[in-house]
Parts: sequence; structure tokens; C-alpha cells
Amino acid sequence: MNAELSFLRTIQPELEQVELLMRTQVKDREPNLRDAVYHLLGSGGKRLRPALSLLAGKAIGADVDKLVILASAIELVHTASLVHDDLIDGALLRRGTPTLNSKWSSSATVLTGDFLFACSARLAADTNSIPVMKQFADTVSILADGEVKQMFAGPCSIDREDYYKRIHAKTASLFETCSLAAAMLGTEDPEILNNMRQFGYDIGMAFQIIDDVFDFTSDASVLGKPVGNDIRQGLITLPTLCYIETYPQDSLVQTLVTGKCIQDEEMLQQFIHSITNSDAITQSRDEAGRFVNHGIQCLNSVVGIKEKQPLIELADYIVSRET
Amino acid sequence: MNAELSFLRTIQPELEQVELLMRTQVKDREPNLRDAVYHLLGSGGKRLRPALSLLAGKAIGADVDKLVILASAIELVHTASLVHDDLIDGALLRRGTPTLNSKWSSSATVLTGDFLFACSARLAADTNSIPVMKQFADTVSILADGEVKQMFAGPCSIDREDYYKRIHAKTASLFETCSLAAAMLGTEDPEILNNMRQFGYDIGMAFQIIDDVFDFTSDASVLGKPVGNDIRQGLITLPTLCYIETYPQDSLVQTLVTGKCIQDEEMLQQFIHSITNSDAITQSRDEAGRFVNHGIQCLNSVVGIKEKQPLIELADYIVSRET
Repeated sequence: MNAELSFLRTIQPELEQVELLMRTQVKDREPNLRDAVYHLLGSGGKRLRPALSLLAGKAIGADVDKLVILASAIELVHTASLVHDDLIDGALLRRGTPTLNSKWSSSATVLTGDFLFACSARLAADTNSIPVMKQFADTVSILADGEVKQMFAGPCSIDREDYYKRIHAKTASLFETCSLAAAMLGTEDPEILNNMRQFGYDIGMAFQIIDDVFDFTSDASVLGKPVGNDIRQGLITLPTLCYIETYPQDSLVQTLVTGKCIQDEEMLQQFIHSITNSDAITQSRDEAGRFVNHGIQCLNSVVGIKEKQPLIELADYIVSRET
Repeated sequence: MNAELSFLRTIQPELEQVELLMRTQVKDREPNLRDAVYHLLGSGGKRLRPALSLLAGKAIGADVDKLVILASAIELVHTASLVHDDLIDGALLRRGTPTLNSKWSSSATVLTGDFLFACSARLAADTNSIPVMKQFADTVSILADGEVKQMFAGPCSIDREDYYKRIHAKTASLFETCSLAAAMLGTEDPEILNNMRQFGYDIGMAFQIIDDVFDFTSDASVLGKPVGNDIRQGLITLPTLCYIETYPQDSLVQTLVTGKCIQDEEMLQQFIHSITNSDAITQSRDEAGRFVNHGIQCLNSVVGIKEKQPLIELADYIVSRET
């Protein structure tokens, strides 16, 4: 947790309850499983999703105890999906900490993910809200379906709509559930629910766009993987899309447009360098900014909302963050 | 489905609805994912768990539409756990059909399992019963925790209580949920619920014991793995436990008792042969029979139960089946 983030200050006690509740889920479980989960929960992470749930729910006047349960369910489902994603990607580090699959067998890693999914489903049920549970389960299937789609997609799909669908499935759908499910615990008003859902969607989209920008602009040491890792894997993200749109005549763009991936390491490095030093980065950041602004507009149109400021700060942080 | 099993006859229409509902879950999903799920659902399986849910729920007077949803949720969670288990065990065949992991990458297999878990959670939520959802989520975590325990257990634990705990986690917990959750859809009476839960537990325990007997008595071609596969992997099941108790002086029993596994192939084959041809097999079958009888007693003590006979036939089938 980053105590220096002002929007977290108002929910510090609830965030501590979330940490406790997540750890309680494995207290009496198999010792190796328990230690693995403690390792996962202890390896950083800004707890943005629980924060979004807590702030969104409190702004709508939802019961705080239920919000803590929901926020824990959401962070556990996020953790579960990271565990399986890192296994699938063969990632060795996450946030500078060794991944579970780098230390454990893939079998144990699969089962730990399954266990965390089950814990999160139980916590979602503990909110005693059927709409929350349905929303929750739908999000988990969107996450898995999205990963499968990405796995089977042909290389280098150059299509903004595809990109937006992909980052919705991967990231924004869970952010959407954070704010929507939290609001569901406080109201049944469809207009409020839709605005709160849209806020989560927008900042989730912005979050992933900024992550995709970092893939070009960060150091490999911070990323824990080579710069330009996405494009190396044939994954076209927003900075590349912006570059393609601005420089359609670039010879490497021509290669991509004909449906081929760039295999040669020197050409790849040159292409990554070109993108990083073009205005594609600013264009992408601007796009993330537009999502956030739209989200804040939706928030502003929620009648009678309380404590809106921390949510706006959270949204601004999503686009201004450095890691 | 085995139309020849008389207890399935009364629920044939509902079982067909279950098949349809399960397939509907993937209708609009990524084509590879959809085909994989169709392959899994089409590769046999007796649908004993859905049958148990449907029969138990109908006996208590639960709403049939909700029972169909519950039965589908349960069969999908069972399928999901088989997908991950086969991946973990590196199994190439199940019920004579190639497993998903034998055809697909482990990544795609992990994600297919995740997707099926998510679908089953959504269906559980579609019963609109919070107690059912909680029971459901708890069972999934028991399944995963049980698998983790088995993975990290020292070799060759010779302890009946350990064995019973293990087969509860692996098998009986889901049977328990079949009958308990189905009954929950029809009543809140704690005595009825407990008897229905116990019935599921007992026939689930019997089911796994009989499976463990088959590991010794079936042909390798039927099993899709070598005879005595469990003991080869250091897993002590009831037939071995019975043999150990009857022949404590056997030299290979002595090896096991000192906490060592039998590594030598010739000695292993000799030991498996000794167990298969001893009364350990009958003793194990008798134990399964005792579980079933106890389950039927519980069923008989449910006041006002309807259509009890198919449940008794299902219970008898569990111990009399040949595969």
C-alpha cells in the first residue's frame, strides 16, 4: 500500500481489514498453500482495485463491512488471475518479486490459482448480494475468455476495436466490477449503477493504456521484462496503433500491415525506438486521459454522491502514475 | 448418459436440459474454447452428479428449473477440476478419450479450466440461492486445498483417517454438495438438509472407494493407466490399507510401514498382485457398501420424502458398477 497516495488515506482502516480478511482465507489451509498465498499478498501491489471498490461503495453509502468483503474478493480474483497468467507467460518476476511459478511446480501454481478463485467466489457470496455474485462470476469468465482469445488470435491484429475489446477483457472488466458491484451494495437505481459502472470501465481502460505505454517507456529493470515485450510477442497495443496511423508509410509499419510480425531483433529494436520517440506515446497518454475525463463526467452526474474527491484523485493517479 | 440405468429414466428430460444448458455457456465464446468444451462434455461421463442433484432435489420438492441450473453448475465444476487434474497428472486419456492437455498447450488447458470454473460459479449464482452459492464456493476450495495437500503430502501415508479425509476432499465433498445444495432449493429444515448432505457424503465416499478398488482390479486398457497406478505414485488407498492391516508381517508391508515407497518394478508388481488377490478387495467393497447403507438409512429418516427409490438405485449402482 502506498500511504503517500492521498485518496488511500480516507480508507486506510478498511484497506487494513481487506489485508486481514484475505489472509484469513488461508489461515487453516495446507502450510505450503498458506505460505504461497502470504507470499503473493505480501509482494506489493497498490491495492487499486480494493481502493476503487471501497471508495465507490462509500460514495454511494453502501455498508462498509460488505465493501471490505467485496474488496477482498476482488483483490483475490485479481491475484488468482495473475498467478495463472504468470504461469502461462512463463514470467519469472512480478513487481520485482519472484512469481509463484518461478519457485513452484506448475501443478502447485495451477492449484493455488484455483484455490484463490474459490476463496474469492466464497467472499463474493458472503456479500449476500445475488447481483454482486452474478457480476463477479461474469467477470471471471470474461477474464478467462479474453486470455483464450489472446492466445488463439493470429499475430499482430491491427485494429483499434480489437485492442479496446482485449483490454476490456483483460483489465477494464474487473475495474468495472469494482465500482459497479460496490455501488450495487448501496443502491438499485439503474442510472447510478450505470454511471458507476462506466467510471470503473473508463479508469480501467486508462489503466491498461498507461501500462501499455510503460511497456515502451520504462526500464527493463522496472518492467521485469525487455522493453517492447508486447510487440516482441506480436501484441499490438495503443502506442503501436497510434504510430501505425501516423506513419503508414514506415517500412516496418508496412510489414505489420501485411499481417507479418517483425522477427529480426535489430529491426524490432529500431521499431520500438521509433515508437518510443514518436508522439505515439503522447497520443496514447492523451487517450488514457480522455477515458479518465469521461469517467469523471459520469461520476459527476451521479446525483447525491458523497466523497467524490478521492475517486477523482484515484482516476487522476491512474494516468499520472510513474509505475 | 446410460439410458439403461433405471434411476436415470425418471430424470431423462432434465438431464437433457442439463446437457443443453452446459453447452449454452460456450455458444458465443472463442471458437477453440467452445470446441474444447464440447469435446470435454461429449467424452462420456455418466452424469452421476447431475443425476444425484436432480433426484435429491425432486425428492424434496425443489423447483425443477433451478435444479437443472444447479446440476449443470455441478457437472461443469466437476469437468473444470478434471481438466486441471489431468493437466497436473499429465494424464493422456480419460474414459478412453484424449484429455485436453494431450491435445492442447498447458496454457490453453489452464484457461479452459478457469473458464469452466467461472461458468459454474455463474450458474450457481443463477439458482438465486445464497446458501447454495456459499456451499458451492466452499466445495471448490475444498477440492483445490485437497489437491494441494495430496501434492505436498509425504509419500505413502498409512492412515485410514488421512485416507478418508483425502477422498472426502477429492470426491465426497462434491457429492455432498449435489444432494445438500439440491435440498437447499426445496427446504430450510436443518434435519432434512443434514440427512440429505449425509446421503451425498456417504455415496461419494463409496464412489471413491470403488474407484480405488478398480485401480487394482480393472484392465490397464479400461483404466487408461497402468494397474496399481495409485501405489506406484505413493498413494495408499483402501485396498492397500486393508492388506496392511491383515498382513502386517508381509515384507513389502514392512517397507511401507517404515515410510518408504516401493520403487522396484518387480516388487511393485508382486505387491499389487498380492493385494488384488487378497481379501483386501472384498473388505474395501464391503466398506463402500457400509457407506451406502448408512446413506440409505439417512435417506429413510427424511420425513415426507418423495421418489426415494431412484436415489436408492443410484446408491446401489455406485457400489455395484463395473466401471
